[in-house]
Amino acid sequence: MINTRTSALLGLLIFVTSPVAAETGYDAWLRYAPLPADVVRARYSTVPRTVTLIGDSPVLRSARDEITRGLGAMLGASITQASTSNASTIILGTIERVRPVVRGAPLPDQLGADGFWIGAVAVGGRRSLIIAGQNERGVLYGAFALLHRVAGGEDVSQLNERQEPAAPVRWVNHWDNLDGTIERGYAGRSIFFENGRVAEDLTRVRDYGRLLASVGINGATINNVNANALVITEAFTPHLARVADALRPWGVALSISLDFSSPRRIGGLDTFDPLDARVAAFWKDRVEALYRAIPDFGGVVVKADSEGRLGPSAYNRTHADAANVIARALAPHKGVIFYRGFVYDYLMDWRNLKNDRARAAYDNFHPLDGKFDDNVIIQIKHGPMDFQVREPASPLFGALRNTNQAIELQITQEYLGQQRHVCFLVPMWKQVLDFDMLATSTSPGTPVRDLVSGRTFNRPAGGFVGVSNVGRDTNWLGHDLAMANLYGFGRLAWNPTTSARDIATNWTKLTFGHDPQVVDTIVSILLDSWPAYERYSGPLGAGTLTDIIGVHYGPGIESSERNGWGQWHRANGQGVGMDRTVATGTGFTAQYVPLVGARFESLASTPDELLLFFHHVPYSHVLHSGKTVIQHIYDSHYQGAQDAADFVARWRRLERLIDRERYASVLAKLEYQAGHAIVWRDAINNWFLWISGIPDATGRAGHFPGRVEAETMQRDRYNNTPVVPWETASAGQATTCRAGETCSAQYRYQGAAGAFNVVVQYFDESDGASRFTLFVGDRQIESWVADAQFGATAPNGHTATRRIVRSVRLAPGDDIRVQVTPDGNESGALDYIEITPAD
Amino acid sequence: MINTRTSALLGLLIFVTSPVAAETGYDAWLRYAPLPADVVRARYSTVPRTVTLIGDSPVLRSARDEITRGLGAMLGASITQASTSNASTIILGTIERVRPVVRGAPLPDQLGADGFWIGAVAVGGRRSLIIAGQNERGVLYGAFALLHRVAGGEDVSQLNERQEPAAPVRWVNHWDNLDGTIERGYAGRSIFFENGRVAEDLTRVRDYGRLLASVGINGATINNVNANALVITEAFTPHLARVADALRPWGVALSISLDFSSPRRIGGLDTFDPLDARVAAFWKDRVEALYRAIPDFGGVVVKADSEGRLGPSAYNRTHADAANVIARALAPHKGVIFYRGFVYDYLMDWRNLKNDRARAAYDNFHPLDGKFDDNVIIQIKHGPMDFQVREPASPLFGALRNTNQAIELQITQEYLGQQRHVCFLVPMWKQVLDFDMLATSTSPGTPVRDLVSGRTFNRPAGGFVGVSNVGRDTNWLGHDLAMANLYGFGRLAWNPTTSARDIATNWTKLTFGHDPQVVDTIVSILLDSWPAYERYSGPLGAGTLTDIIGVHYGPGIESSERNGWGQWHRANGQGVGMDRTVATGTGFTAQYVPLVGARFESLASTPDELLLFFHHVPYSHVLHSGKTVIQHIYDSHYQGAQDAADFVARWRRLERLIDRERYASVLAKLEYQAGHAIVWRDAINNWFLWISGIPDATGRAGHFPGRVEAETMQRDRYNNTPVVPWETASAGQATTCRAGETCSAQYRYQGAAGAFNVVVQYFDESDGASRFTLFVGDRQIESWVADAQFGATAPNGHTATRRIVRSVRLAPGDDIRVQVTPDGNESGALDYIEITPAD
Repeated sequence: MINTRTSALLGLLIFVTSPVAAETGYDAWLRYAPLPADVVRARYSTVPRTVTLIGDSPVLRSARDEITRGLGAMLGASITQASTSNASTIILGTIERVRPVVRGAPLPDQLGADGFWIGAVAVGGRRSLIIAGQNERGVLYGAFALLHRVAGGEDVSQLNERQEPAAPVRWVNHWDNLDGTIERGYAGRSIFFENGRVAEDLTRVRDYGRLLASVGINGATINNVNANALVITEAFTPHLARVADALRPWGVALSISLDFSSPRRIGGLDTFDPLDARVAAFWKDRVEALYRAIPDFGGVVVKADSEGRLGPSAYNRTHADAANVIARALAPHKGVIFYRGFVYDYLMDWRNLKNDRARAAYDNFHPLDGKFDDNVIIQIKHGPMDFQVREPASPLFGALRNTNQAIELQITQEYLGQQRHVCFLVPMWKQVLDFDMLATSTSPGTPVRDLVSGRTFNRPAGGFVGVSNVGRDTNWLGHDLAMANLYGFGRLAWNPTTSARDIATNWTKLTFGHDPQVVDTIVSILLDSWPAYERYSGPLGAGTLTDIIGVHYGPGIESSERNGWGQWHRANGQGVGMDRTVATGTGFTAQYVPLVGARFESLASTPDELLLFFHHVPYSHVLHSGKTVIQHIYDSHYQGAQDAADFVARWRRLERLIDRERYASVLAKLEYQAGHAIVWRDAINNWFLWISGIPDATGRAGHFPGRVEAETMQRDRYNNTPVVPWETASAGQATTCRAGETCSAQYRYQGAAGAFNVVVQYFDESDGASRFTLFVGDRQIESWVADAQFGATAPNGHTATRRIVRSVRLAPGDDIRVQVTPDGNESGALDYIEITPAD
Repeated sequence: MINTRTSALLGLLIFVTSPVAAETGYDAWLRYAPLPADVVRARYSTVPRTVTLIGDSPVLRSARDEITRGLGAMLGASITQASTSNASTIILGTIERVRPVVRGAPLPDQLGADGFWIGAVAVGGRRSLIIAGQNERGVLYGAFALLHRVAGGEDVSQLNERQEPAAPVRWVNHWDNLDGTIERGYAGRSIFFENGRVAEDLTRVRDYGRLLASVGINGATINNVNANALVITEAFTPHLARVADALRPWGVALSISLDFSSPRRIGGLDTFDPLDARVAAFWKDRVEALYRAIPDFGGVVVKADSEGRLGPSAYNRTHADAANVIARALAPHKGVIFYRGFVYDYLMDWRNLKNDRARAAYDNFHPLDGKFDDNVIIQIKHGPMDFQVREPASPLFGALRNTNQAIELQITQEYLGQQRHVCFLVPMWKQVLDFDMLATSTSPGTPVRDLVSGRTFNRPAGGFVGVSNVGRDTNWLGHDLAMANLYGFGRLAWNPTTSARDIATNWTKLTFGHDPQVVDTIVSILLDSWPAYERYSGPLGAGTLTDIIGVHYGPGIESSERNGWGQWHRANGQGVGMDRTVATGTGFTAQYVPLVGARFESLASTPDELLLFFHHVPYSHVLHSGKTVIQHIYDSHYQGAQDAADFVARWRRLERLIDRERYASVLAKLEYQAGHAIVWRDAINNWFLWISGIPDATGRAGHFPGRVEAETMQRDRYNNTPVVPWETASAGQATTCRAGETCSAQYRYQGAAGAFNVVVQYFDESDGASRFTLFVGDRQIESWVADAQFGATAPNGHTATRRIVRSVRLAPGDDIRVQVTPDGNESGALDYIEITPAD
């Protein structure tokens, strides 16, 4: 036993000292990887090796300890604490406390809340670094800023940098349920809750707070907006206080989501009417109890009258009535309430062509502008629908002039591949943040970023909310590359004018190191990933074309049609797209100011990428690009699938340049994505080919060289089964196997002899671990277990996946056989095999 | 107790003597209802009251006893047996035996098998009636013919009538399984089998044999063509013999379906290769055993290489090899084998536009013409697909010149309303039987009726097979009016030139009596029923548009697309129809002789009603009728639903003219049908409206005045649920209720005060008995139980149904509420309510 342990330990040590050290992803962009000795010598020899903290508090100690830890690790030096500033040292403190200590240093006079100044100064002939914050948080953010500079290899000897955040609100939301599950979470169970209560061990929460602070995030709502009323019961408060304690050292304010019907549900009242005095008293009492336990409590989030949640409509009250009753309880404590603008009728009559879910946020909230108290913030999803792969900016951003607002961005990739696909969202977010709503006639305009931050209309509160949904997976979001989105959200919330490329580059260097090929490759994958995802999922602004009323993952084109959850594309045999014009459609374009609305009202001036969001057009409509709509659909889906395949090829070139663990983990995900992109491509192209009746001019859609459908193979016990929806299986069908049997499908190869890749396209259902085996003749070539616990219990677009078995030698007459032994409730469904040239 | 019995008996007697006597439908068209006394006096006073049987056998005794029973009942007289022919009597016997007894009577010299002569003669000054058969069966058929004449009130005093059947084969098939279930049976369990064996009590079989004999049917295959191999085991034979004994008095030969793989399955062999001597010996041995037990055994039916049944392809043998090996075992015993032509690939690649299930019968059997032994009969479905509401005649009828053939007609309404809808099939059958295949250049042509009877090519065997599937329901087929199809099949098999109107009229008089209004009404409903069903189901030859791969009942438009069971209509956004032309399609038209094929090849000469069977056309294509295809779809579906509603109105006028039991039973079915016709109408119109994007010029499709969707009503516990396929629920959705709850949906009426019909459109699932109640305000208006055990366990086109609550008084502000308490696994699904003027 001892020998085994020793050698395992040796292996680990060898790894740690190799240039591509073992990585779990847990440290994310705060790895503080040792810098090469020559870099340390050349660039950081003058950086002080001591740190002097002026003042004391949990946040300030975090700042000091982070410098100690980070610089120590990166520079390979021991950073010690100095009690005076007489030596060459790194001085940390609020401006107010630092100013008297380093007289003459160019500290700024005025700094916005949470801002900081970092600079290199000579104090008494000794070179020091000063990190001065407008407040304690500012000190912490300044410390992280310095560490970022060093980790990025930047020169800090001439540092003189002042930074202030764009907005006071830079919060994350979590849709964690008290039982530990996470709605739309894709990286394991909750770090906050388990078994109906706050988790015992909050180590992950503390470490998460550090990640948040490192990019300037200052608030976190920890429970689902579909809230359990129990969170504000007396019994629960001490547990919330433990979470607040874990986040406090990182300057992250705790916040919770509330159930608007709480007065009735847990308050002993027979009403939750916001104008009832007893209800107001209930909220006051509960909020006071929260602040007694958590004096720096941040505020609350409320989702009311939406998707079955109770709200003020039960008493014919307005959303302003609802928000204000809670706001007034919070105001004395400086707390805020985020009232979600995601209110819509999910029982809409789809046959009424004037009905339009996209209208809902504006229709509900614009009439109430000015009716909300000053500590109410309307939290508005970035687009008018629901985090689709392409949406215009919500018109509500331009319509609230006397009301605080915040933009809700979704870090968790609900409709965008659920962290099984790489999809770097910063470019998508920026497209909305940079969109000029023309809300005033001022120059240089009123981009969404200035509206939500409160700058345009001088609102006292406002900013950015990101739905994070990190989980207990070691790397927080499941996909190592998805962490670029959490990082990027923080960067944009701090400064939304930062470029996507800068953010991608910074993140990549911090996360994977400085090797130019590594940086170039990963940055290129990140920047290409959203366009690729858009290409193989929803084209031209039609929405993601996923299963809209279910898991929101794989393709499911008709799921978004003909139900009360809103129409998304109205595709029929003649054409596709939602007519949202005033002239002939839902009138949605009138929700924008006239100049903006006119641009979308006109087919000629609507950009191609939003065409189908605003217009219903025939498939033969010619885009600005010169292509017809139908040909664009075919082409873009082939292009998108090719993009995804290219990500794999690009990533493979990094094999020896980064640590094996993350290399292998990301490679597996990218290979899966490349396969699933083909599922998307084929589903959408086959469906549109069918319904439009217009062939692909290049002949690809509907034709699959080298593909052999399982249902046409020689089957033993396998039964042919229609797949629902049909477009999610090749030829609409699969073969399935009954529990307790072993089934197989066999195909006699008659092509030329040689080495080929054999693709086995099957369905990895969520309720078992079925074993698949590939044989050629009697030879077992490969065997694997389909043990996903995700997506669906049936063969469909969520579970469709593939195994590529490479370099299989085949000769004419060889029998290729796929065998399955289903497990659990699985069906061992097989879609097809494909024989392709070896790569 | 005695009192109760007495009064019940009295009640019965009173009924029997009333003009509208109680009826169960069990006696079908053999009711022998008493004729009015004046009719008896005026027309039948000279009919002899004695019967003289010449010869003796079970069949002859049946003939005599039927005369005794039938004439006795109709004439209100006692018919006695006379031992000599010296008195005025009814003489029964074969021609050969009768001729010497009644010298001088104009008995025909030559009569075809099973033929008969009936005539009125004076024998020694005494008026007698003679019933003389070419064989014993002929005597029986003659007896029934005489009884039919009398029951029809016809004069028989000058009778001199010679009849011969059109073909030797006039058989029924049954798809009964040994466990007592019936594949595609809609009237209860099997009369032949129960619990894996032949039923103990064969009374129903005997009475069924009498029904068959009365219309000239001479053979019955009693088990499913998807056969259980056990039927030819040694142990089973004595049980079959019991069935043969029950049928023998009626001249009905017993026949069974065989599993072609029996040699391996129950014969102890490792093969069923038809060219293997051991296999031939197996069949010989089994057939001999059958004939030992049943000397008049009729023959066998075989379905091989079809829909998963094993067949000769397993050994690369032909269908001729397969049929002949069994035929040679049967030949010494004069037995025949029906080899089914329904062979097709149900794993067809639907994406190959050249693939066509309709081609299969011809492609499989035409090359084998002349290869079959003389006691093999190829049993060919009437159309090339599968009993759809409209198909052209199978081209195989014209392609077999040296092979026996029989036409397979389906009495059980598999695709035609399953005896829940009235659909009189004789006109449909006649359309095929009368179709001239132009197989030779002879005049007056080669209609299908002459090809299948063997007349055209002088084949030794051939004729008519009807798939009957009667069950234990008292009235045999579930719907009283459906019995016209069993009757009509027999009539056509005997003489296919009989008109549909004559058959309908004869049947109606025998079944419901002579009242002219009754006869006119029922005949009109019968004759209008197939056109109506066609109008509201599948238009223009597109097929039934039902759920093709499931229960074949309600609408399910896309079920027949994109799967291996054959493409049926290829509807997409541009157009609809199967291109079966040689020029651009599957080439199916070339299976007809050139003159016929050319007619279907050309769009111009293809009749509208078969347009979509042969051509794929845009929705805007203009029919010969002058309408576009899409407008025809809309119009015909509204017309069909109106037709079904009219059947109810017509039937209601018979209320006091026929017995209450059958009046009420048929009325309930017609009302159900009228509602289900609306389900059909809306499903198909909504689907085509969606996919074509072309509105109904009259504005009906997609607009439903007075309809309130359940999902938009105020719901208590009811949840909105998408219905699959969407077109089978109004607006694609229903509300469903969880087990153990009571759910309701409420709507506030705001129209004018008055009396209205309230339609409650809901789903009667098959797995429970849910209770529905309709309230207006607090008043309970009606309550009923949805206890169907048919169709599906989910809300869809099979289970959609309605309750019309008539003359409900409504005032503005009234709350109309539907409440459900689900039972079993049912969901208590509600689709909509509709408020319509009281009728």
